[in-house]
Amino acid sequence: MRKVAILGIGQTKIDEHWNKSLRELGGEAAFLAMQDAGMETVDALYVGNMLSSMVSGQNQLGTFFSDWIGLWKQEAVKIEAACGSGAAALRSALMAVASGDIDSALVVGVEKMTDKAGRDVTAALATAADADYEVDQGVSFVGLNALVMRRYMHEFGWKHEDFAPFAINAHANAMHNPYARLHEIVTVEKFERSSMVATPINLLDASPVGDGAAAAIIVPAEKVSRKPRVVIAASAAATDSIAVHSRRDPLFLQAAYASSKRAYEMAGIKPDDIDLFELHDAFTIMAALSLEASGFAERGQGVRLGLENAISPQGRLPVCTRGGLKARGHPVGATGMYQIVEVVQQLRGECGKTQVDGAKIGMAQNIGGSGATILTHILRNDD
Amino acid sequence: MRKVAILGIGQTKIDEHWNKSLRELGGEAAFLAMQDAGMETVDALYVGNMLSSMVSGQNQLGTFFSDWIGLWKQEAVKIEAACGSGAAALRSALMAVASGDIDSALVVGVEKMTDKAGRDVTAALATAADADYEVDQGVSFVGLNALVMRRYMHEFGWKHEDFAPFAINAHANAMHNPYARLHEIVTVEKFERSSMVATPINLLDASPVGDGAAAAIIVPAEKVSRKPRVVIAASAAATDSIAVHSRRDPLFLQAAYASSKRAYEMAGIKPDDIDLFELHDAFTIMAALSLEASGFAERGQGVRLGLENAISPQGRLPVCTRGGLKARGHPVGATGMYQIVEVVQQLRGECGKTQVDGAKIGMAQNIGGSGATILTHILRNDD
Repeated sequence: MRKVAILGIGQTKIDEHWNKSLRELGGEAAFLAMQDAGMETVDALYVGNMLSSMVSGQNQLGTFFSDWIGLWKQEAVKIEAACGSGAAALRSALMAVASGDIDSALVVGVEKMTDKAGRDVTAALATAADADYEVDQGVSFVGLNALVMRRYMHEFGWKHEDFAPFAINAHANAMHNPYARLHEIVTVEKFERSSMVATPINLLDASPVGDGAAAAIIVPAEKVSRKPRVVIAASAAATDSIAVHSRRDPLFLQAAYASSKRAYEMAGIKPDDIDLFELHDAFTIMAALSLEASGFAERGQGVRLGLENAISPQGRLPVCTRGGLKARGHPVGATGMYQIVEVVQQLRGECGKTQVDGAKIGMAQNIGGSGATILTHILRNDD
Repeated sequence: MRKVAILGIGQTKIDEHWNKSLRELGGEAAFLAMQDAGMETVDALYVGNMLSSMVSGQNQLGTFFSDWIGLWKQEAVKIEAACGSGAAALRSALMAVASGDIDSALVVGVEKMTDKAGRDVTAALATAADADYEVDQGVSFVGLNALVMRRYMHEFGWKHEDFAPFAINAHANAMHNPYARLHEIVTVEKFERSSMVATPINLLDASPVGDGAAAAIIVPAEKVSRKPRVVIAASAAATDSIAVHSRRDPLFLQAAYASSKRAYEMAGIKPDDIDLFELHDAFTIMAALSLEASGFAERGQGVRLGLENAISPQGRLPVCTRGGLKARGHPVGATGMYQIVEVVQQLRGECGKTQVDGAKIGMAQNIGGSGATILTHILRNDD
């Protein structure tokens, strides 16, 4: 496999973009990435998206965007792995460049969610769960996560407010990210008083949906002279049962464990070597489970990292340094690419007040469904 | 890039499988391919599918199937490129094995289409076209193809019945394929008398939808001792504008030209070297255009190959030897993998009465949208 580097990145603000179509949204991030990379064309386009057929009546997003952004005749394809679609698109692109079949790829994660009524979007998001054995039985996606969170609290003795630091950190970091959807400081009091969604998950445990797109250009590392040079040191994907109730232990993200383990091996590092971790905090409980399965905390002790303030940009394991899903926002199929873009920003030292000092190695973990598909990428500044 | 071989294949009959769920359908083809390959697990699963979120309320099909067929913890992802999803899934899997990142992959093309009313399926299929500039203007998918066919007849002076040989050949071949949806001989008289769908396209110009799944296992060629050994000699993808009206020449499949040209170069062969061609005859007009753009006929002369009987299994360029989309059936996201499975059957000499004598090199071309995404694969018996 050839070593592959990320040459350019681009992103839109996450918002309710009622004045921008799906086309315009994805195109904007794509153009920014190409501009950043100083490239006018690429060999192939990989699009990560989950909902466009249901929300915008548009499939075939690979060609839809290659057409719109002027990559005429080039190869293009869409990858879908629910909320893990963004990182899955990056991984497919990586395989093609690493194999030598193509020499450059544009990866765009894009999601337009606010053109439909909330109940339609909730129904569309439920397609990430098991239609036969979960959704048709009446449980919603947030309901599934609520069951997991309740069990976790019961099993390990945590109170609801112990999860507050995840939301507080994400919102504090998002204050300094112009692309973030929410710019609002959260406190323990606000966290505890926010409205209930599905007990014990309340509004400030949950990430907001939104419209957004994030993109990156990847090329063989040997062709990159730009400094710092950010390479993809590891890429790994793993799965679990799609239905949460089928898991031997619903409190352990088996696929996060497997994919992070493989990623550490590929990169030749240990969890301790990670300078920052963009994790998939769709709900605060997922942040805790992700930290545990990825080797940063013992079973049931993920929340402790938040309580000990280890997760701030100055902490020993900064997470969600640009706001995470919680405050940057969670445009589902785009999220994985936002994480990648943010890790690149950190390794380039472009993060201002939430910059992690001397960041050299960053990890991003993107989750599809309730832990069903998990992709872990490790990026490294290899100057 | 490592050379990659197809070790096992599997397929279900295409039909209205009201007694089989999406799960069972894809699982059946997957198990057959694993059985044929003599393998009990693989490193990763790639699923090609277009409609499951809209028809079955189920997304994240990669993990959905890895869970169902017992590939626990393995990597899994879904690829979507409208009706080109099947071949696009194969190509993504190929890149991963060729790169050396994984050592085996299962590729499943699957589509369950008959669980919804016809009008819902028609609406779902329309997501392959341009939602803003085609569908919202009131043109259906078959309507787009009808406009192209009418223009072709006008431009090159062909009558409707000149397209009959494509349907006649496909139906004749399907009589000997137990997996085909339609087993019915077509004649010129039947062809001309069948009911109109969108003038000039009538029922016998059009392929039937259906439920079906087809699968293959790919591994590095060096690991295959089975004879004959079928290798993927070339894989190429290209795109065109998604809206037909945006094309400089709507009668030329630019993406078929580009992808077949690249495939011939990769395989080191000329069109004359192809022993059989599984083309994408969603409509008879697409068969003609595909033959022209892929170098088998001059512009406007694709229909002549049918009229000269060159396309039968005994002709100089056999096409649709197992029935093609027209008679084997067109479960959209699965079709590309049916084509691959059928080429493998030919190269193995398993096609009985429609076996192409001494077939050594076969080509499959899978089309998403009205020529928007086109993938060309060349398989070779390299004994």
